[in-house]
Amino acid sequence: MTLPTPLTGVVPPVCTPLTPDREVDTASLVRLVDHLVDGGVDGLFVLGSTSEVAYLTDRQRALVVGTVVRHVGGQLPVLAGAIDMTTPRVLGHVPALTEAGADAVVVTAPFYTRTHPAEIARHFRLVASRSALPVLAYDMPVSVHSKLSAELVLELAADGVLAGLKDSSGAEGAFRSVLLGRRAVPVPAPFSVLTGSEVTVDAALAMGADGVVPGLGNVDPAGYVRLYAACREGDWERARAEQERLCGLFGMVTAGDPSRMGGSSSALGAFKAALHLRGVIACPATAEPQIPLSTRETETVGKHLAAAGLL
Amino acid sequence: MTLPTPLTGVVPPVCTPLTPDREVDTASLVRLVDHLVDGGVDGLFVLGSTSEVAYLTDRQRALVVGTVVRHVGGQLPVLAGAIDMTTPRVLGHVPALTEAGADAVVVTAPFYTRTHPAEIARHFRLVASRSALPVLAYDMPVSVHSKLSAELVLELAADGVLAGLKDSSGAEGAFRSVLLGRRAVPVPAPFSVLTGSEVTVDAALAMGADGVVPGLGNVDPAGYVRLYAACREGDWERARAEQERLCGLFGMVTAGDPSRMGGSSSALGAFKAALHLRGVIACPATAEPQIPLSTRETETVGKHLAAAGLL
Amino acid sequence: MTLPTPLTGVVPPVCTPLTPDREVDTASLVRLVDHLVDGGVDGLFVLGSTSEVAYLTDRQRALVVGTVVRHVGGQLPVLAGAIDMTTPRVLGHVPALTEAGADAVVVTAPFYTRTHPAEIARHFRLVASRSALPVLAYDMPVSVHSKLSAELVLELAADGVLAGLKDSSGAEGAFRSVLLGRRAVPVPAPFSVLTGSEVTVDAALAMGADGVVPGLGNVDPAGYVRLYAACREGDWERARAEQERLCGLFGMVTAGDPSRMGGSSSALGAFKAALHLRGVIACPATAEPQIPLSTRETETVGKHLAAAGLL
Amino acid sequence: MTLPTPLTGVVPPVCTPLTPDREVDTASLVRLVDHLVDGGVDGLFVLGSTSEVAYLTDRQRALVVGTVVRHVGGQLPVLAGAIDMTTPRVLGHVPALTEAGADAVVVTAPFYTRTHPAEIARHFRLVASRSALPVLAYDMPVSVHSKLSAELVLELAADGVLAGLKDSSGAEGAFRSVLLGRRAVPVPAPFSVLTGSEVTVDAALAMGADGVVPGLGNVDPAGYVRLYAACREGDWERARAEQERLCGLFGMVTAGDPSRMGGSSSALGAFKAALHLRGVIACPATAEPQIPLSTRETETVGKHLAAAGLL
Repeated sequence: MTLPTPLTGVVPPVCTPLTPDREVDTASLVRLVDHLVDGGVDGLFVLGSTSEVAYLTDRQRALVVGTVVRHVGGQLPVLAGAIDMTTPRVLGHVPALTEAGADAVVVTAPFYTRTHPAEIARHFRLVASRSALPVLAYDMPVSVHSKLSAELVLELAADGVLAGLKDSSGAEGAFRSVLLGRRAVPVPAPFSVLTGSEVTVDAALAMGADGVVPGLGNVDPAGYVRLYAACREGDWERARAEQERLCGLFGMVTAGDPSRMGGSSSALGAFKAALHLRGVIACPATAEPQIPLSTRETETVGKHLAAAGLL
Repeated sequence: MTLPTPLTGVVPPVCTPLTPDREVDTASLVRLVDHLVDGGVDGLFVLGSTSEVAYLTDRQRALVVGTVVRHVGGQLPVLAGAIDMTTPRVLGHVPALTEAGADAVVVTAPFYTRTHPAEIARHFRLVASRSALPVLAYDMPVSVHSKLSAELVLELAADGVLAGLKDSSGAEGAFRSVLLGRRAVPVPAPFSVLTGSEVTVDAALAMGADGVVPGLGNVDPAGYVRLYAACREGDWERARAEQERLCGLFGMVTAGDPSRMGGSSSALGAFKAALHLRGVIACPATAEPQIPLSTRETETVGKHLAAAGLL
Repeated sequence: MTLPTPLTGVVPPVCTPLTPDREVDTASLVRLVDHLVDGGVDGLFVLGSTSEVAYLTDRQRALVVGTVVRHVGGQLPVLAGAIDMTTPRVLGHVPALTEAGADAVVVTAPFYTRTHPAEIARHFRLVASRSALPVLAYDMPVSVHSKLSAELVLELAADGVLAGLKDSSGAEGAFRSVLLGRRAVPVPAPFSVLTGSEVTVDAALAMGADGVVPGLGNVDPAGYVRLYAACREGDWERARAEQERLCGLFGMVTAGDPSRMGGSSSALGAFKAALHLRGVIACPATAEPQIPLSTRETETVGKHLAAAGLL
Repeated sequence: MTLPTPLTGVVPPVCTPLTPDREVDTASLVRLVDHLVDGGVDGLFVLGSTSEVAYLTDRQRALVVGTVVRHVGGQLPVLAGAIDMTTPRVLGHVPALTEAGADAVVVTAPFYTRTHPAEIARHFRLVASRSALPVLAYDMPVSVHSKLSAELVLELAADGVLAGLKDSSGAEGAFRSVLLGRRAVPVPAPFSVLTGSEVTVDAALAMGADGVVPGLGNVDPAGYVRLYAACREGDWERARAEQERLCGLFGMVTAGDPSRMGGSSSALGAFKAALHLRGVIACPATAEPQIPLSTRETETVGKHLAAAGLL
């Protein structure tokens, strides 16, 4: 399908289920997609940070996007991350994503290298000019160690370079500047502004965001769909209640002991443990070298599920 | 050849010459290798940060390492960077480097993901256990945003996981802790400690380092060979004079205007401009999306070469 | 007066007008207080970051708090920052603030020193136990380079150490965790949660915040009072419109050229320029070594005022 | 006495002994000064980071500098830190230090506020122009979160603003740039370049530094005096052996458990524990809110002393 213009609604970043020996578990992946579609989501984002894209080989990335696109069969738009260090390496991923049938690519600022706003702008311009698919910018400073400024995003939107923004920066003030700025400047084509937050979705939608890309949406897609609907209906009390329930559920991301594992291991391990406990995926393993959750930590995840009425 | 044990001397990180359309210029690469070998270096490090590894596609990486290994024909050890975000992706690069004939792989801590010392240790252990080649750790906090602690490096050395360390952290105190620590703990196999600094080589060698991996060594390999020799002979006055001359030459890395380009663009652009001005490579282009040096900035590089007696 | 429990509403951090030779301009300060009181604010926060507390000598700090407390004469609560590096120095400021008649003190985590969450907790416990006045925590990571975690804030609230939080972290997710957490744990006394944001006030109040401490409230106190009222009435559309007008006005903080001055100089310079243009204060000077706005930059501030209907 | 031009040699940052109730223990302070003078040091630096200046009230600061200046009676130069957030507050400390008889003041870049290089330059120019005493810049990025560039330091030296630099940045490359730069530019008056490192003193002196300001010099002043002498005599082998012994001793700074205290608490706690174990000071207490070393951690400090032949 072609990308809706603008893309709106709940677009979860799809976890990548792995087998115990860390191969992509395509059967579980298909079940997870069904779980999300059944939950009512509006699109899927594969090969994002929550998908453990940083840990997947190129072969595994192709397997993931191909499996998902074939399975959804055009029912929903599928966005795919082309996550790599610089322009040539990002462009190296685009053909496989295009051939697999993704509807858009999602691209971060350069990383590993010390970069500059002028180089970040050039990066997005080059990627967009050489890609057949629409390009969304992925603002992820915790991973790439630079922040996309509102000015830069709006300049690229005004020039038709970007089809949208997925903002995982946590900086709500700058996010709002993008939302206000796109009203003020003439944007040649629809430009989607999506928040990557799990816990301030009601606020982001109230400010004018088009949609949400919540990692926790893997665990409770129906919850985010209800939240989105309540916001669209302007029922802010109902939205707030649903959001607060999801905030409680989101507490699972701190299940892992920070003295022995990183924040990624804990959060991704919790999402996968929850999907395993809910019977969606066959194995909760995360990719290497992440540290797995202990039995006790997995029990904590279970308690969060139970408290949210999901187990 | 097999990796010398321990690896010592001057091991420059080899620039990757590009054509104007950003393809690897193998003819220039071969000339650059000859220039380095003629300068008397003790080994070559391809696919490091100075090689613009972050900008090279997998195909280009294979072309670089294959070209260099074939050309040196076993005269010198060739180390190759396997620079990627996490364990599976690093391991994805190792077979090509092994088949091309590299003598060791050089590996950073995970990046893009939020990591933890326990995961960094696990990463190196997994990479080493699944690689036929020796593994050197590459401490590069400016790129990967975590620092390898002396404790971690020494633990991995004591367990035979690592064959060495390339330290580009600029933290001389921690570097010295590694040097002192390896004397105190029984290391099962020779463990090379190399500094990535261009400007404190005399100090690093005086502290007991085995060798140096200077990006500026592309421009003036003979200078670093003389510096290394003076240090080995204990002629610290001569070493200091040579080092100070090289410090002046290193000033070229600030040729680029920081208000319009990043530090990588400026430094890598300066090294390539210098190699072009010296007639070693055919084209000074850096990879995209880096900003090129202006004509005036290139003249600044030329002045540094002239002042150092290299033009 | 005693601190309202909990403190709610609009509590602007009061700018400190200076004379051209950088003495506290008490006449202008009194006019500014009148301007704020006339705007309908619910309290005043003197000696915060927006007050240039970091630039005021102890004598000047005492002059500011004394002038303001005497002038408001108990009509409104007056909070006062006790901003210094560590426990003994913070405690060194408390007697003067107490004697001057402040109703509460506002305290950051230790800075300059490398600290630890256990030391931050100990800091607040010691300050609170040795102060006659209620203590609010001031979460200001951009200045002190550590973030108060929701867990830490809630622990200190539950133990009765803190009377409230002023959150200037910009991290809305963590802010919401505090708001949700204080419902879940039994807090012995009213605990005020205030946002320091200028641009997400509607969102913060919708999440359950008690009030707002906006630097821009110096320039347009009535705007924030209207915004607060609309939120309290649940009229989110009106709130959003007022907030968006204030977001436009807030654009003045980028008036200063970032290539020649810091962000503090630009923002504080813009607030003072606006107060000067509006006729509230006699001189727009900021404290040294801040760089003053140019004539042209001041004109930009004027345009923001005009666009917001304030000039 | 007037400041030697340039200041050279070993100038330890003097610890501030405290009583159990955290008052300055002047009797212990006098014994510590005697211990340092007996060790052969060339000057004293009071009210620096190692002196816990960030924790001392203004009254305590005056007591420290007065006690030390009176006790040394002009035998040695006494430098005093004027450590505070901005220009007016730094200038607020200078009269007390001047009246107490300090020979120079030591000043960092502004902190707490978001600053800019132009503001840092203005800060030093204003402080110097309004102080009767010579001003040394204190480069301490771990505390103030900005680095003094070599360009900035050399510009201020060339203009006669600064009498010297105490570099605690750990960035040896930039340090060398200052050392090389001061030879190239005409400096109107002697400009001292001192390293704050404990573990790369031989390297710094070999590069051309004038002296060293080692926190560990409180514990073993004679060791640093021997190290300095060996370097001045060009006996680099003897220097290296002494430096390596001191590196081992320096291991005491990691005695404190990082899971329960900050790096400052551990390092300052270790220095004071060592001075207490050696019988120099009456009580090892550090200022609040620092976490004290445990009995076991203090034993670790003792082992380091024993291993270095100091107990």
